Formats: sequence, structure tokens, C-alpha cells
Amino acid sequence: MTPHASDARRLHDDAVIVDGLQINNWNREVIQELRTGGVTGVNATAAVWEGTEQTLRAVGEWYQLTRNNQDIVVLAETADDIRKAKDEGRVAVVLGFQNTSPFGDDYRMVEVFHRLGVRVAQLTYNNQNAVGGSCYEPEDSGLTRFGRVIVSEMNRVGMLVDLSHVGNRTSLEAVEASSAPVAITHANPTWFVDNPRNKPDEVIRAVATAGGVVGCCLYPIVLGGAATTVAEFCAMVARLVDDLGPDQVALGSDCTRNWGDDYVEWLRSGHWRPRGETAAQWPEWPYWFRGPEDFPRVTDGLIDAGLDEKTVRGVLGENWLRLFDDVFAGGRSS
Amino acid sequence: MTPHASDARRLHDDAVIVDGLQINNWNREVIQELRTGGVTGVNATAAVWEGTEQTLRAVGEWYQLTRNNQDIVVLAETADDIRKAKDEGRVAVVLGFQNTSPFGDDYRMVEVFHRLGVRVAQLTYNNQNAVGGSCYEPEDSGLTRFGRVIVSEMNRVGMLVDLSHVGNRTSLEAVEASSAPVAITHANPTWFVDNPRNKPDEVIRAVATAGGVVGCCLYPIVLGGAATTVAEFCAMVARLVDDLGPDQVALGSDCTRNWGDDYVEWLRSGHWRPRGETAAQWPEWPYWFRGPEDFPRVTDGLIDAGLDEKTVRGVLGENWLRLFDDVFAGGRSS
Repeated sequence: MTPHASDARRLHDDAVIVDGLQINNWNREVIQELRTGGVTGVNATAAVWEGTEQTLRAVGEWYQLTRNNQDIVVLAETADDIRKAKDEGRVAVVLGFQNTSPFGDDYRMVEVFHRLGVRVAQLTYNNQNAVGGSCYEPEDSGLTRFGRVIVSEMNRVGMLVDLSHVGNRTSLEAVEASSAPVAITHANPTWFVDNPRNKPDEVIRAVATAGGVVGCCLYPIVLGGAATTVAEFCAMVARLVDDLGPDQVALGSDCTRNWGDDYVEWLRSGHWRPRGETAAQWPEWPYWFRGPEDFPRVTDGLIDAGLDEKTVRGVLGENWLRLFDDVFAGGRSS
Repeated sequence: MTPHASDARRLHDDAVIVDGLQINNWNREVIQELRTGGVTGVNATAAVWEGTEQTLRAVGEWYQLTRNNQDIVVLAETADDIRKAKDEGRVAVVLGFQNTSPFGDDYRMVEVFHRLGVRVAQLTYNNQNAVGGSCYEPEDSGLTRFGRVIVSEMNRVGMLVDLSHVGNRTSLEAVEASSAPVAITHANPTWFVDNPRNKPDEVIRAVATAGGVVGCCLYPIVLGGAATTVAEFCAMVARLVDDLGPDQVALGSDCTRNWGDDYVEWLRSGHWRPRGETAAQWPEWPYWFRGPEDFPRVTDGLIDAGLDEKTVRGVLGENWLRLFDDVFAGGRSS
């Protein structure tokens, strides 16, 4: 190991690494992949299209999985739970939703799911819902009246508003409506890759200016494909740090470990349209990031991109931790 | 009885009267009110905010109610079922939804509910949903991608698209997207009463031009309050007949029999927002239309407004029957 590589490894091992989003088919092996990669905290998706009852089952499964593997994993409801897990060598899972579908039409379900441990909810997944517009819809209504009630309730109980798949207009209105900072847990700027899932400057700046955090994303579709290099990805992170300041930029890998192709078809078509004649397939990941085990390569890349150690620690996890400290405290009125 | 009144009574008794929408708390007494008023067919609301499971229960309750009162009521799945009920002196209930919430996120629920007897579904109630925008939202997204799948599926199975509470943009796009005629089962023109629940000319003409039917509505809020006279209401109907032709205009009373004030609060707030500090109350109905028993007064008014007998029969029921014949046949591709 060169001195540089040895320093990078020391930083990586010492930092509290928090991933803004993973949507794995979780089991002990997947949890071990995070430990191998040095990842302590993760916002783990417990719902995408699912409604209330099915999501309650998913939450119950998480209770069981963490109980059965408590030597290596724990559910986190605060940033301190993540910090503690780092000391214990365990993975700390923050339960999150990529949709407000688990709330159904009932704003009181925000408090119910918060009580059950859920700390993050994306306002929409890929389709418009009762809360607002999605990035994939031809038109974005903006945040609805129900959407304002939901955001206000999330502010009150201490649940982080995630805008990653949300339409741009709804995103801007949600930043405005929210009395707490919000997040883009897993997306990139459109200037990096022009894709509906990525965010124009206006949205990114609004989130950052309001104290929120942007999780730069490694999912191939928003990364520009498997050919994108770690240097290109980390140069994007560095430019965002320049633009927004070192405290507003983080990572959200969008890892999709241990699923078959059926699951990507579910993500795309849900129950909302007939499944395609040709089954959807997962995109190919870049050689340098196949999954959570490859996080050390990202740390190397961030250092190579010229970021100082404090900034690297911020991007790797401290920025998520500070946002979680702030938002999860709750108690804000609208 | 004057000769005029006696002719009107004969016409009323002989006509097949179909009400485009009632949202009663149904029991034997309410069914008797319809019989007293000479109403044979009715689109009866089985869901407003309810999701799949709760709506299945409501459908099951309808099976039980009609079985227990089969001497006076029957479920109708075709226009001929209504015509037959007229001969039998029974009320024929067409099951309908004022929302697509019973379909949840699953387009296949359209066929499931059609198989269970549901023949009408309004695309949205008072809030935006996954299908489109509502008349009460500040912005209307238009018909979503899922909305297009839903409309196409309704066309295929033979379920009538109702636009009464739907936003104007979504309404226009639904008329365009639907391969079958659609309905406004219960609303008035904004030139009659300027209210978000009423429809601008552009929407009314689009529905009529595509072969659809507009059900003129007696609910006080869209009628202009309890002081509106039967002559004013029937003059509006007559003007619509002039504008759109005699085949596109009908009635949709929006009767709300046998509910307490709790129910109007449910209609307004559902589970989507905290209930108001002061409880909502039902609006006062005009003295000349308190409920289904007063339909003869509307028949009198239509004759007094100068409509010929054929037109009156069309408005009272034949226009709904013709639309039901057409749409319920299904089999249309998109």
C-alpha cells in the first residue's frame, strides 16, 4: 500500500459512512456486503408501490431480520443510533419509503409509521399520487392540498422529506412548504446526466439553500451508464461541493442487491400498467461499483478528486448524520 | 287536477326515470322514497374516498340490501335491467364510484369491480389522485399515464367514465382518451352557478360532442342555494337542450338522504386533513326538491319550461338509458 492509499484506507475505516438509499432484497449476506464496504448507516427502502397493509408487513419483516441478525445489524431511529452502531461494528438501518403510498389517503399514517420506526419518505415514486407529481409524469401538478398536510405532519413527527423521484415543480413547492430541511437521497444534477430522474440546478439549489442534502447516486441510469468512471463521478461530487458548500453533498448509491429481473419490472410497471412483452432487465453497474463492498473505491475517488479530509467525511456520512439530527428531532409546526 | 297537471302526471308515471347520481345512506325507506317519486334507475355511489377492501364490503352490503328487499329493488348491470325494473315496479340500482380509489394502484381492479357489478366510476373525487386532477385542486395535472390505462380498461370492460368532480384539464383529456362516450353525472354549467364543481362550456361541449350526457344537478351548492326556483333550474336544462341537443342532457340529483352531519364532514375531509373545528353541515335543499319524492315537480317544471314530451322523456331517463346501452356493452379498444 502506498502512503496515499494507506491514508485513504485509514480515513475510510474511521469515517461514519452513511448511504442515502439502498433498495436491496435484504438478508444476512447483503448486510455483510455493507460491513465489508465499511457502510454503517443506510436508508433502506421498505416501500415503493406498496400500500398500508403490505408496508406494515415489510416493517414487521425488518423487525424480524434485525432481531435474527442483531450481531451485525440494528434499526436506527436517530443519528446517534448510527454513531453507536459504528462503535459496535454493526450496520444501522433507517427505515424509509420511496413513496407516500403507505400513508394511503390518511395523513395520520405518518405518525403511525413514524412510531414504527420509519424516518424517511419520498413524496412520490414514479407516478403522480395524491401528494404531488412525479419526475416521470408528462405534467407536474405541484404539491396538492393533501401533500401540504403530509409535509406538515412529517415536519411535526420528524420524518425526512425525500424528493428523489418527485417532479420538479412538486419538489420546489415541497421545499417551500417544509419547515424542516429536505433531501434528495439519490439523484444527480441534470448537468451531469440529462435524465428525468436527475435534478436541474434550480431544484438542487433550493434543497441546499434550505439546509437540505443531495445524495449523489451510483445507479447506472442516473450515472450515465456503466462506462462512467469513478473519476467522472467524483468530479461531479467535487463540483457540487464547490457549488453548494461542503455540508450539502452526500451519497445515495441506490444499490439493488440480491434481486432477480422480476423486481425491476415491478419497479417500473407496479400494478399500474400491463407488464411489457419483453421483461425489463437491471442495468449494468460500472466495474468500480458493483455494490456496497465497493465504497472504498468511492472514498479513494473523492480524495483523488482533491477534496479535503473533512469534506470527504461530510460526503461519506457526516452530512447525512447532521441532517438526521436536525430533522428527526421533529416538533416543527408548519 | 287540471288537464295540464294530469298530462304531466301521466308522462311522469309512464316515463322511465333515471337519476344520474344519488349518494344516500340506503335502506328500505330510502328505496321507497325513489318509488314514491317515480324514479326507476339510479347510479348509486358505493365509494367516495374508500379503497379496495372497504369498497368490496360496500358492494357486499348492496348484495345483501337488494336480496333482503327484492320486492322493491334490484341491481342493474344493463339499461335493459332498468327497463325491466320499470315494468316490475322496482328500483334498479347501478353501482357506481365517485372515485377511482377502489382500484388502488392496480388497473386490473377495473375488471374485478366490473365483474362485481360496478358500471360507473368518476376518475377523481375532491382530491388529485394517481389518475388525474380534481376540480378542487389549485392545479390540474391532466390525465396521468395510469389514468390513460384506467380509461382504456373502463372502455374495454364497459364502465362509464364520470367527470363530475374531475378537474377541467383532466376532463378534456379524458374525453379525448376515451373511445366510449363519457358522462358528467351530476354538475351544472358555470354560466348557471359559478362554482368549482360546475363545468365551463368547453368541458360540457366536449362531453356532448363525443356522445356523452350531462346530468343537471340539484345539490344546493351547484344549484345556487335553496332559493333557486324550479323554473330557474328547468330553464337551465332547456338552454342546455338548445345548446347541446335533446339527447345529451339528463338529471343527476346528488340526493344525500338519511345521513347525519358526520357524513358531510367525511365527504369534505375524508382522512386527508384534520376535521374542522366547527363541524360541517349539510346545505339546505330548496323547498321544491327535498329528495327523490319530489321528482314529479321537476317533470312539471320541464314541461312548464316548454320542452316537448320526447325531450322531457329524454332528460328524465331515456338519455341515460341510451348512454348505458352504448357504454356498458364494452369491447372498445383504445
